[in-house]
Amino acid sequence: MAKILTIGAQRQQTGRADEEPLDRLNALIGEDMRRVNALIIERMDSQVELIPQLAGYLIAAGGKRLRPALTLAAAKLCGYQGDRHTGLACAIEFLHTATLLHDDVVDESAMRRGQDSANTVWGNTASVLVGDFLFSRAFQLMTADGDLRVLKILSDASAVIAEGEVLQLLTTNEIETGEDAYLDVIRSKTAVLFAAAAELGAVVADRPKVEAEALSSFGLNLGIAFQLVDDMLDYSAQQADLGKTVGDDFREGKITLPVILAFRRGNADERSFWRRTMQDQEQKDGDLEAAFALMHKHKALDDTIARARHYGAIAKDALGLFPDTGAEGEAKAALLDTVDFSIDRAF
Amino acid sequence: MAKILTIGAQRQQTGRADEEPLDRLNALIGEDMRRVNALIIERMDSQVELIPQLAGYLIAAGGKRLRPALTLAAAKLCGYQGDRHTGLACAIEFLHTATLLHDDVVDESAMRRGQDSANTVWGNTASVLVGDFLFSRAFQLMTADGDLRVLKILSDASAVIAEGEVLQLLTTNEIETGEDAYLDVIRSKTAVLFAAAAELGAVVADRPKVEAEALSSFGLNLGIAFQLVDDMLDYSAQQADLGKTVGDDFREGKITLPVILAFRRGNADERSFWRRTMQDQEQKDGDLEAAFALMHKHKALDDTIARARHYGAIAKDALGLFPDTGAEGEAKAALLDTVDFSIDRAF
Repeated sequence: MAKILTIGAQRQQTGRADEEPLDRLNALIGEDMRRVNALIIERMDSQVELIPQLAGYLIAAGGKRLRPALTLAAAKLCGYQGDRHTGLACAIEFLHTATLLHDDVVDESAMRRGQDSANTVWGNTASVLVGDFLFSRAFQLMTADGDLRVLKILSDASAVIAEGEVLQLLTTNEIETGEDAYLDVIRSKTAVLFAAAAELGAVVADRPKVEAEALSSFGLNLGIAFQLVDDMLDYSAQQADLGKTVGDDFREGKITLPVILAFRRGNADERSFWRRTMQDQEQKDGDLEAAFALMHKHKALDDTIARARHYGAIAKDALGLFPDTGAEGEAKAALLDTVDFSIDRAF
Repeated sequence: MAKILTIGAQRQQTGRADEEPLDRLNALIGEDMRRVNALIIERMDSQVELIPQLAGYLIAAGGKRLRPALTLAAAKLCGYQGDRHTGLACAIEFLHTATLLHDDVVDESAMRRGQDSANTVWGNTASVLVGDFLFSRAFQLMTADGDLRVLKILSDASAVIAEGEVLQLLTTNEIETGEDAYLDVIRSKTAVLFAAAAELGAVVADRPKVEAEALSSFGLNLGIAFQLVDDMLDYSAQQADLGKTVGDDFREGKITLPVILAFRRGNADERSFWRRTMQDQEQKDGDLEAAFALMHKHKALDDTIARARHYGAIAKDALGLFPDTGAEGEAKAALLDTVDFSIDRAF
C-alpha cells in the first residue's frame, strides 16, 4: 500500500516547504488525520484485490484531503471531543474519490494529479465499478455512525453532486453558457460537498442549527472559490508545477469562467475562435497558446481570481459568530487559513 | 413520461397473456406497485431534464419490477399494514437501475430489454452520471425511511454488489473460471439485492430475526436461480422472443455457467474453440452457432436449468416456517410463484 500523504507532506513535495500556509490546520488536525488515513486504508480493502489497488492508486496520489480536513477542523471549532468525525471524514473522502473516478471516465482524462489517471491504467469499467464500491463504503460508514441527520446531509449532497455532473455534461461545448449557469454547476458538483463536510463538524458536536448553517455556508463559499481557482489554474503557467496536464479543460471544450469571460469580452473574431475550438472542438497547433493570449488580453484569469476572492470573503464572514480566542479561536484561524490557501495557490 | 409497466402488463406484451404465472402476485401487490410506480416517477424527476429522460427510458423499458415486488410481497407475508414498504421498494428499483446503467457502460451493451441501451442513445458519460443520481436518490429514500437496520442492509448490499461487479470484470475472458467462482459472482452481483429486497419486508414489519433471515435466504436463492436462467437464456433460441440481442455474453467473452459446463465437459478441440472465442476474443462467422451446438452436445443449458431448480428449491424451503393459510398463506403462495416464474421463463 502506497503511503498516504497528509497536507503538509503534499506541500513539501511541491518544493515549497518554506511556506506552509496550512501549518495551523496541520497542527490542529494532524493526529485526527492520521486516524482518518488509517481508516481509509482499512475501509477501502476488499478480497477483490483490484479494488484496494485502484482506490489506493488514486487516494495515495496525494489529494490535499481538504474535504475531510474541513470536517475534522469544523468539529474542533465546535468543541467536539468524541471520535465520530474521523469516520465521517473518511466517508467524505470516499464520496469525493468516487466522484473523481467517475469524472475521469466522463472527461476521458488521461492524467490526474500528475500521474496517469486510474481509467488510463485500469480502464473505464474498473473506474466506474470501484467508484460505486467507494460510494457504497461511504454509505456504510455513515450508517455505522447512525445519525440520520448525517445521512440526510450526505445523501442530499450526493444527489445534488450527481445532478451537477449531468448539468456540466450538458454545458460542455456550450460556448454561450453564462456565468450564473457555470456557478450553478460548480456549486453543485464541488461546493456542496465542501458545505456538507464542514456542516458535519457542527452536527457531530450537536451544536445549534445556526452554527451548522454557518459552517455549511463557509464550506459552500470556500468550495466555489476553490473550484474557480482550479479552473483558472487549468489556463495558468503554474499548471506544470502542479503536475497537471496543461489545457485539459480547453481540449475537452469544458466551459469554465476564464473562457466565459474571454468569450463575452472578445470581439467577433475572438468569439469565432472560441466557437471553433470549444464548441466545434476543431483545434489545431497553437490554439491553446492563442487561448492563453486572449485570456491575458481580457484579464480573464485575474478576474476569475477576483471572483474567487469574493466567495472567499463570504466564507470567512460566515465564521464570524465563532469566537476568536481559546481552542475555538485556533480552530477558526486554521479554517480561515484554508480560504487563503485555496486562493493563494494561484500564485 | 412513458407509461411504466407492471408485471402483468409486461407479460401481456410478450404475447403470453394466456399464461399468467404471476397472477397471484399481481393481485396481492398490484395496488402497492401502482404507488411504487408513481413514486419512481416522482423521485427520478430533476430540474436537469436529461435525468428523468434517461432514467425514464430505462425504467419505462419494462423491467419486471421483480425486486421491488419481493419487498412488497414479503411485507404482506409479514402482515405489514403501514406504507414504508413502497418507499423502500422504490429505493430497491433505483439501486437496481443504477447498477444496470453502470453495467451497460461496463459491458458496452448495445441493447437492453429489446431496445437500444441507454448508453447507446445518450453515451457512456450520461449513463454513469444518471446511475450515480439514482444511487443517491435510493439513499435519500432510505434516509427518509429513517430505519438504520434498513440502511445497513442496503448499504452492505450495495458494497457487495460493487465488489461482485469488479469480480465479474476480472473473470471476464477467463475460460478457466470454475463453477464456484461463477456462483460467487452471481451471488454478489445479483442475488444479494434480491435477498435485501425480501428481507426488508420482515424489517418494516418488525418481525423476529428468524423470519428476516428466512426471507433473506429466500431472496438470495431465488436471485441465484434467476441469474442462472438469465445466463442460460443468452444462449437460448428464446432470446429473440425476449427481445434481447442473441449471444451478448458470448461476444463479450463473459464466462457464465453454460460456457463453464461446455468447456469442462469438452474435448481438447472443443476447449481450444472456447479459448479462442472467449479468452482470446477471436470470433468469426458461425462461432456462435458452434457454441450453441457444443452446449447442446454437453447438455450445458439443461444442466444450468437443473442447477437453477436446486436453488429454487432452497428458496421455497426457506419460507417453510410461514403459514400456508389466511392472508399470510396467500402472500406465501405469491412468493413461491416467483420461484416458478423465474425458472419456467426458460421454457
